Amino acid sequence: MSQFNIAWLPGDGVGVEVMEAARICLDALKFDATYTHGDIGWEFWCKEGESFPQRTIDLLKNSHAAMFGAITSKPVKDAEAELVPELKGKGLIYRSPIVRMRQMFDLYTCLRPCKAYLGNPLNYKEDIDMVIFRENTEDLYAGVEFSPVPDELKATLKKLSKPFAHFADIPGDQFAITCKVNTQKGCDRIIRAAFEYAKTFGYPKVTVIHKANVVRATEGMFLETGKRIAKEYPGIAMDDANVDAITMWMLKNPKNYGVMVATNLFGDIVSDLAAQMVGGLGFGCSGNIGEKLAVFEPSHGSAPKYAGQYKVNPIATILAAKMMLDWLGETEKGSRLEKAVAAVIAEGQVRTYDMGGSASTLDMGEAIARKL
Amino acid sequence: MSQFNIAWLPGDGVGVEVMEAARICLDALKFDATYTHGDIGWEFWCKEGESFPQRTIDLLKNSHAAMFGAITSKPVKDAEAELVPELKGKGLIYRSPIVRMRQMFDLYTCLRPCKAYLGNPLNYKEDIDMVIFRENTEDLYAGVEFSPVPDELKATLKKLSKPFAHFADIPGDQFAITCKVNTQKGCDRIIRAAFEYAKTFGYPKVTVIHKANVVRATEGMFLETGKRIAKEYPGIAMDDANVDAITMWMLKNPKNYGVMVATNLFGDIVSDLAAQMVGGLGFGCSGNIGEKLAVFEPSHGSAPKYAGQYKVNPIATILAAKMMLDWLGETEKGSRLEKAVAAVIAEGQVRTYDMGGSASTLDMGEAIARKL
Ligand SMILES: CC(C)[C@H](C(=O)O)[C@@H](O)C(=O)O
Ligand SMILES: CC(C)[C@H](C(=O)O)[C@@H](O)C(=O)O
Repeated sequence: MSQFNIAWLPGDGVGVEVMEAARICLDALKFDATYTHGDIGWEFWCKEGESFPQRTIDLLKNSHAAMFGAITSKPVKDAEAELVPELKGKGLIYRSPIVRMRQMFDLYTCLRPCKAYLGNPLNYKEDIDMVIFRENTEDLYAGVEFSPVPDELKATLKKLSKPFAHFADIPGDQFAITCKVNTQKGCDRIIRAAFEYAKTFGYPKVTVIHKANVVRATEGMFLETGKRIAKEYPGIAMDDANVDAITMWMLKNPKNYGVMVATNLFGDIVSDLAAQMVGGLGFGCSGNIGEKLAVFEPSHGSAPKYAGQYKVNPIATILAAKMMLDWLGETEKGSRLEKAVAAVIAEGQVRTYDMGGSASTLDMGEAIARKL
Repeated sequence: MSQFNIAWLPGDGVGVEVMEAARICLDALKFDATYTHGDIGWEFWCKEGESFPQRTIDLLKNSHAAMFGAITSKPVKDAEAELVPELKGKGLIYRSPIVRMRQMFDLYTCLRPCKAYLGNPLNYKEDIDMVIFRENTEDLYAGVEFSPVPDELKATLKKLSKPFAHFADIPGDQFAITCKVNTQKGCDRIIRAAFEYAKTFGYPKVTVIHKANVVRATEGMFLETGKRIAKEYPGIAMDDANVDAITMWMLKNPKNYGVMVATNLFGDIVSDLAAQMVGGLGFGCSGNIGEKLAVFEPSHGSAPKYAGQYKVNPIATILAAKMMLDWLGETEKGSRLEKAVAAVIAEGQVRTYDMGGSASTLDMGEAIARKL
């Protein structure tokens, strides 16, 4: 029996290909795991009306961790159109499986390290080392939304909110509401996770990203929570920035930033920007981390137009595997894997198309494995 | 009597200084206007508990357009603390005057052109010419928010929304809700404004920025509206991107983008990023445009730490003045002003500190005026 049960969820499109490359590296490391394939993604939506089937949920319940490739994700109407005829018109609503997985297993930390590896021709600047902590379960992702807006909700909002007067007379089908829901607990734990990380890895400061000047209730709470928790970490500075302004500062002075923390959707945006600064889609990786389970993935999507070509850069997925190793306590293997990635990038001999080379997805996986 | 009544609202901090520089240029153009000063900003919040006094509202009602500098903006609690003693504890709540102005006068279009002028040492790349249309009155800016969450709202949401079950048992003071409210009318008119602009100025496509894959009710409506309105403009292509992904694409291929349109908060974020790509705070300008009134401003803030130094770059404000001239139909003057700005940048003799030079705010204003 192996030490770890790993759920293996390649998903759609290039997800399958980058996961193969990551497996080459994990095997070369002699990581002691049993990998069990799990069905997930578009195919299962179309055939079964369920992109994240119960059998996959059960598999996750019995796994120590999971590696996840990528899934195709479409707006509700487009998704409905692709169901098999028997399932059409049944009111099935497509929801992103990764978002559901994060919520269902309470994987509240989305950890996104963005490091500029030396020699990566795609780096925006050298010495970038940003680590984004994104709250992963609530916020505009809570799914509490209305279109049309029911009369009963209109009446309640009219009664309870002065500014709602502006909308109270609009017919319910002429507007929509998405509730941004943030809990005190949700703010606390993600901000604490960020400070703990800064403490463990020696980052001097945590930057709290918010929009408290306008979105006062929820983002105000997030900022206040940051200020409160910062007091528990006297060795670590806290600064804060509005989410609009931070995009400017990150571009202007990336070296000013290390650990950053944000609510779900702002974290989504800022982490994509940070990933682009260190090479883009081929380099951005994520850990979706809860108390009992964690799911690691490249941040990129399924890239349907490249599917089947074994062309895309698997480094993001290989770095996600490194995060998994670390989280499982296999830190020696994790750091060997990262060093191998760094060595291949530094040498510049093997490069995928995004880096200006012609290596395939698996060439890259093998080149990294050879360094192990 | 002059042709135009212009409300002149310098506001706080460096707002005053950049407005002086803009005035030098408007005067050199012999723009036929009467300028009337309006009180706005932090000073009036502290003294009167009102950062946007009624007398200023009245002034705007009697003006053809306004120029606005910058205001200091603080989270609610910090703002309360700075009120004069007599006003403390009265439940006064600070709300950003510019946000209120946009809503009160229904200035629904926030137009933010971001152009890389040749020779600007701060350009991220050459040939960037992005024009962001940001919806300016609703969305997360609607002010419909709750902290704590009243029991009555909890009960209504519990009844009407399945996903709310997750939050239903949390005490009201342990979470907060901000409603993102988007109307069909609001989506329609901003998207139409973007397409009209593309048509008038010969842009081949409009990019609709959204997050319809997750924020389905409101952002889904925005995307669908884009698709519908695009059909009315057969000569103009439409593409769309998720707000997280667009930050990557903008950095990777800025030349792919021209006219872009987004809901309020996403537009806020994306336009700051775009502004940074063409020089940052000293270059980002905004028009807040309604049917009857428009208010023009630099996108930067009041920069308290530079106040009194006449150091900051007034080009953003001067380009805002150019937008005002265009909007008032004074397009010949508007284009002369833009050419003068471009000429000073291209020559590179007069540069403010952000551009690596030592020219003052007024030096820059005068250099531009000399080219007129
Ligand atoms: C695919 C999408 C639902 C997802 C998100 O918005 O969280 C993605 O952008 C991410 O960042 O993992
Ligand atoms: C100052 C602030 C309220 C404002 C906003 O969020 O709209 C600013 O960021 C802007 O973009 O004009």
